[in-house]
Amino acid sequence: DAADLLTNEAPSAERKFLILTVATEETSGYKRYQRSVKINGLPVKVLGLGEEWKGGDMANSVGGGQKVLMLRKELESHKDDPEKIIMFTDAYDVLFNANEEKILEQFHQFNARVVFSAEGFCWPDPNLASKYPEVERGKRFLNSGLFMGYAPELYKILNDGEIANDDDDQLYYTKIYLDEKKRKELNIKLDHRSEIFQNLNGAISDVELRFIGTESHLENTEYNTVPLVIHANGPTKLFLNTLGNYIPKSWNAEEGCLNCWEDMNSLEKKKPKDFPKVVIGIFIENPTPFFEEFLHKFLALSYPKDKINLYIHNGASYHGKQIAGFVESHGKEYASVKLINHDENVKEWHARNLGIEECLKKKCEYYFNVDSLAHIDNPHTLKLLIEQNRPVVAPMMIRPYQAWSNFWGSLTADGFYARSIDYMEIVQGQRRGLWNVPFVTSIYLVRGDIIHNPKTKPNYIYNLLDADMAFCTNMRNNDVYLYVTNRLDWGHLVTVDNFETHHFNNELYEISNNRWDWEKRYLHVNYSQNLDTNLNVSMPCPDVFWFPMVTERFCDELVGEMENFGQWSDGTNTDPRLEGGYESVPTRDIHMKQIGLEPGWLHFLQHYVQPLQQRVYEGYWNDPPRSTMNFVVRYRPDEQPFLKPHHDSSTYTINVALNRPKIDYEGGGCRFLRYNCSVLDTRKGWMLMHPGRLTHYHEGLYVTKGTRYIMVSFVDP
Amino acid sequence: DAADLLTNEAPSAERKFLILTVATEETSGYKRYQRSVKINGLPVKVLGLGEEWKGGDMANSVGGGQKVLMLRKELESHKDDPEKIIMFTDAYDVLFNANEEKILEQFHQFNARVVFSAEGFCWPDPNLASKYPEVERGKRFLNSGLFMGYAPELYKILNDGEIANDDDDQLYYTKIYLDEKKRKELNIKLDHRSEIFQNLNGAISDVELRFIGTESHLENTEYNTVPLVIHANGPTKLFLNTLGNYIPKSWNAEEGCLNCWEDMNSLEKKKPKDFPKVVIGIFIENPTPFFEEFLHKFLALSYPKDKINLYIHNGASYHGKQIAGFVESHGKEYASVKLINHDENVKEWHARNLGIEECLKKKCEYYFNVDSLAHIDNPHTLKLLIEQNRPVVAPMMIRPYQAWSNFWGSLTADGFYARSIDYMEIVQGQRRGLWNVPFVTSIYLVRGDIIHNPKTKPNYIYNLLDADMAFCTNMRNNDVYLYVTNRLDWGHLVTVDNFETHHFNNELYEISNNRWDWEKRYLHVNYSQNLDTNLNVSMPCPDVFWFPMVTERFCDELVGEMENFGQWSDGTNTDPRLEGGYESVPTRDIHMKQIGLEPGWLHFLQHYVQPLQQRVYEGYWNDPPRSTMNFVVRYRPDEQPFLKPHHDSSTYTINVALNRPKIDYEGGGCRFLRYNCSVLDTRKGWMLMHPGRLTHYHEGLYVTKGTRYIMVSFVDP
Ligand SMILES: O=C(O)CCC(=O)C(=O)O
Ligand SMILES: O=C(O)CCC(=O)C(=O)O
Ligand SMILES: [Fe+2]
Ligand SMILES: [Fe+2]
Ligand SMILES: [Mn+2]
Ligand SMILES: [Mn+2]
Ligand SMILES: [Mn+2]
Ligand SMILES: [Mn+2]
Repeated sequence: DAADLLTNEAPSAERKFLILTVATEETSGYKRYQRSVKINGLPVKVLGLGEEWKGGDMANSVGGGQKVLMLRKELESHKDDPEKIIMFTDAYDVLFNANEEKILEQFHQFNARVVFSAEGFCWPDPNLASKYPEVERGKRFLNSGLFMGYAPELYKILNDGEIANDDDDQLYYTKIYLDEKKRKELNIKLDHRSEIFQNLNGAISDVELRFIGTESHLENTEYNTVPLVIHANGPTKLFLNTLGNYIPKSWNAEEGCLNCWEDMNSLEKKKPKDFPKVVIGIFIENPTPFFEEFLHKFLALSYPKDKINLYIHNGASYHGKQIAGFVESHGKEYASVKLINHDENVKEWHARNLGIEECLKKKCEYYFNVDSLAHIDNPHTLKLLIEQNRPVVAPMMIRPYQAWSNFWGSLTADGFYARSIDYMEIVQGQRRGLWNVPFVTSIYLVRGDIIHNPKTKPNYIYNLLDADMAFCTNMRNNDVYLYVTNRLDWGHLVTVDNFETHHFNNELYEISNNRWDWEKRYLHVNYSQNLDTNLNVSMPCPDVFWFPMVTERFCDELVGEMENFGQWSDGTNTDPRLEGGYESVPTRDIHMKQIGLEPGWLHFLQHYVQPLQQRVYEGYWNDPPRSTMNFVVRYRPDEQPFLKPHHDSSTYTINVALNRPKIDYEGGGCRFLRYNCSVLDTRKGWMLMHPGRLTHYHEGLYVTKGTRYIMVSFVDP
Repeated sequence: DAADLLTNEAPSAERKFLILTVATEETSGYKRYQRSVKINGLPVKVLGLGEEWKGGDMANSVGGGQKVLMLRKELESHKDDPEKIIMFTDAYDVLFNANEEKILEQFHQFNARVVFSAEGFCWPDPNLASKYPEVERGKRFLNSGLFMGYAPELYKILNDGEIANDDDDQLYYTKIYLDEKKRKELNIKLDHRSEIFQNLNGAISDVELRFIGTESHLENTEYNTVPLVIHANGPTKLFLNTLGNYIPKSWNAEEGCLNCWEDMNSLEKKKPKDFPKVVIGIFIENPTPFFEEFLHKFLALSYPKDKINLYIHNGASYHGKQIAGFVESHGKEYASVKLINHDENVKEWHARNLGIEECLKKKCEYYFNVDSLAHIDNPHTLKLLIEQNRPVVAPMMIRPYQAWSNFWGSLTADGFYARSIDYMEIVQGQRRGLWNVPFVTSIYLVRGDIIHNPKTKPNYIYNLLDADMAFCTNMRNNDVYLYVTNRLDWGHLVTVDNFETHHFNNELYEISNNRWDWEKRYLHVNYSQNLDTNLNVSMPCPDVFWFPMVTERFCDELVGEMENFGQWSDGTNTDPRLEGGYESVPTRDIHMKQIGLEPGWLHFLQHYVQPLQQRVYEGYWNDPPRSTMNFVVRYRPDEQPFLKPHHDSSTYTINVALNRPKIDYEGGGCRFLRYNCSVLDTRKGWMLMHPGRLTHYHEGLYVTKGTRYIMVSFVDP
């Protein structure tokens, strides 16, 4: 059990090895440092905890004289023990990935009394570079974030001269090292090739994470070494966040996510009535396709509704009715509902901040932010996120079939999206776990203590940044780690861009923007069975094939779209919609083009029809399928009740039944004359596919009652 | 029996009706006149026979005073009989088509003592026109070729004034008629509306031949009369030749050809050794397609070869070998062979005249001219032509499916082809018989008496006219009637124009020029069975049809053509013959285009393949079929032995086996993968037809031994 590793061995005076660090606050970085200490059973003494930090802003400029002064003081008690080995490390930006034995083994290889870590930059005074001894292979310059040595020599170094709290510690050590006499006398060496210490600044491309069974380590592929202590000096702090997702013992290839199980907060033994109180903020900032499904899934969340206070910001008048209906039907099931409607004209930033206020007001234990584009397909999501017990944790969601997700693995220098080394593995679910990342959005759970602590209280405003960017920036600045979890599948994102809302049934048109959702709503549940080459496709007439394709809902919406449009052709040979203006075998129809669905239909042909065509007409392949004749036909006894025998100008034709024989109409069907074979019992949502031009001379049979609708495409004319 | 009609009733003094005519020579026209006299049982007395004609060239200028003088003399013996009715007619250009009863009945209707025929031209002195009485309806001017009246009045007219032998008779009568006093006194009338007499000059479009049962008569549709005596005055002599083919009793709709049976010369009772001696002149003036077949049919003539002397003029070096072979193999079977070869450089005119000389030399009884383009399909032709016993008689032959024949029904004023009223009926065989025509060519029999009579001896030279034109012109000028017979089918003409002789098998390319002969040589004998909609087409695999298409000879010649050309493609995907330069499923092949056979092949697709396609793939129609990929494939174990599964870029594909499985090669065949169906026992000359693009994924199976050849077209790509 991973938790067993977290035993901390307290440093004792008898031990010949001691690690010293300086930390004034128990930040997230400090906790991560301590975790790595404990996992490796190292003897660490922390100096300055609770004291005021006077060493300057180390992240952004020089400073750190205070650290030298603290160490000098601490060394007093060890200076006379020539066997005592002391290591100094920074704390917030350092990780251990080895135990004492390994560290000392490497140290002894140096035959030195003192070893400083090395880096590629001569800092803070680049003019000193030429004073450094030449190095054949390896980093040339001293870094003072990590070093170790025998106590007497270290004591001499720390007492070599004066230093103020806000003087630069690294400059102090550098000057001693560059004094050749002192260097020789004290036998000071640099770890040029990261045998012990890895400074990451300027060296990110030198290192690679390696997984062997349950082992995860960083390898320096430049020098073929395995550094034991890692220091994210300079602007490499986010990279250390990424490394921390794996080492020490956070994740490995065999056991997967180990840190997932740390610090959990199980609800297992709690009764629903004792479940934590959650405020859920639902944000509809834009017209969002498949919002109907969003609400259904939201309703299906497996969490006691009376523990949920809803806060809804509807920024899109388009969804007004749906949301009103939702609140009317289900509002009372929740502890409370607060709805801010689009007509209140509240900006997104403020709406989101008001969500946090609602959380404060309701004394929430968690705040769950859910944007309307985040479909929670896994109803256990909320409960599982609560149990994960992190300051901020987002269930990973992606746009299906895309690399677009609700988190960023890394940031550019100016704070925008950058791809981390593991982004694709995480997004594609090849690496499952809990990931410290710099940016999450759309859906995430914020723990109550973060909300209620004024220092970390979420704020969606930061300069002119988008609300989600501002939220994350503020969180990072407040040293709150943001996690994304893909331990399980939670749901997915719909794409809101390019959603056309001027049609009658707008989601019909989302086939390509939101393929996944489109399929769930419109693709026949048995569609993919026919892709299974072990099964036979139904063949009602020779070389005529029959497939379940679309849902009844699709059929109804398509017919609805057509009848709403209403401009049925007149059934004569004159057809101004065609290039030649002439149709020899006219039907009463409306073309997909006329209702703007042609591009979507071509997508349908390419992605759903073509694979079936390839199954049944082996060896024929035309990608994408072409079709300029895509139309819905209407047969009626009092209008055009039948279609005379003809060929189609197609390589193959598809013919989808849009309603039901014997129920919606009498008669009808399609007869293939050369085979004396008819398909009379057509099935709503099922598609006939037949060769168009040569062998399958066919006719549309007489409709004696009611109205028959079919959808036809002449593919590859 | 038609011959029974030819009884001549001698005019007797007791009879009240007498016909007088003047003829100095028994020309063909005279004989035709006499035939019409006899058939109608008319009392004709001919004046001047054997006397010298002094009346001038009646055909081309005025003259005929001699006729008046002869009549004047003859009337002496009738002048006192007021009941005696005398008719005068010209002889060479006149036909009777009625008997005495009808003639007199019509005459009495006039209530005149003298009736002259009328015409539309005032001749020979147009200045007299205004002197003529006005006529409401009908021809206004007197013609003296035909008239009749009572003997006393006629006598007065004939003795009205002086006239010289070469004065114009018509002017003589005209002057009397225009003298109003004489006209009244003698009661002279003109037959303005052809109640008795039809002058044809200027009136050809007034008349029409009519057939009712066994009745053939000329109807004047302008005046609704049926003229009884017809006179080809002026330049209408050839039209009378045509009329003479029908009247009197020459041909009628019920009994057909009556004159065919007149003057026959049956060989029935003769033994072959007593058959007439014939010189046959074979003329090859140009490279002639299907000459091989010509010779075979010529050899097959059912006539004793020892009665035949061959005279061959080969004007085309192209046929040198064939003729040498023919002479070597068969020359001895004939009485003699004289060959004038192309290297002797004898011009056609002279070569043909030499044929006549050969006839004279051999003391031939007949001369049979046969040009190499005249295929004698009926082996009895020669014997039957001899029996027909006409001065010159040609067996009608046409270019199959065309209106082009070996005779002309009429001539233009300058002697070239003009279409007679009955040309199409004759050419199409709807009217069968023996036809007096102005021009025959290519194949005809000349009776020995015409050859041996120095006056009528054929001569192929006349100014710069072509030999055949010259021959006919000379014959016509010598008053020798030329007949063409279509009583039976004799043979047909091949088309020599545009015959390309630079190929390996030149006749292969004659599909469109000489369709009939091409079909006989190359089209499978059972081809047309599959056009019979009552029979089922063989279907070796679903929607794959199988047809006998071409002869084994076609297959061998096509393969020969390809192997002679030899530039087989290399079987790689790079194909510079194609527009895109790329072939995804390459065969080792040669395109029809490369051997210049593409146009011919497109003809084949249109005329032979398409009708079959329409039978098996109902409702599909594309005329003409398009195809840019027409090629012969060669499979060999050591080259390309098979073709991987593929579709063709065609609506349908045809695949003709060009050689024999199990004999010429082992393995091979065509497999349709989706139906798990193979055609292995392909048949040489048979064609597979299958859909190309969608359903009939197919492969060419492995050829394990020998060479397999197929011909493939991708139709309507
Ligand atoms: O009515 C049917 O099922 C056939 C329709 C059809 O053939 C066409 O629209 O081309
Ligand atoms: O070998 C055969 O019969 C098939 C030939 C073929 O499919 C082709 O040439 O496209
Ligand atoms: Fe159709
Ligand atoms: Fe093929
Ligand atoms: Mn540091
Ligand atoms: Mn639109
Ligand atoms: Mn005359
Ligand atoms: Mn050519």
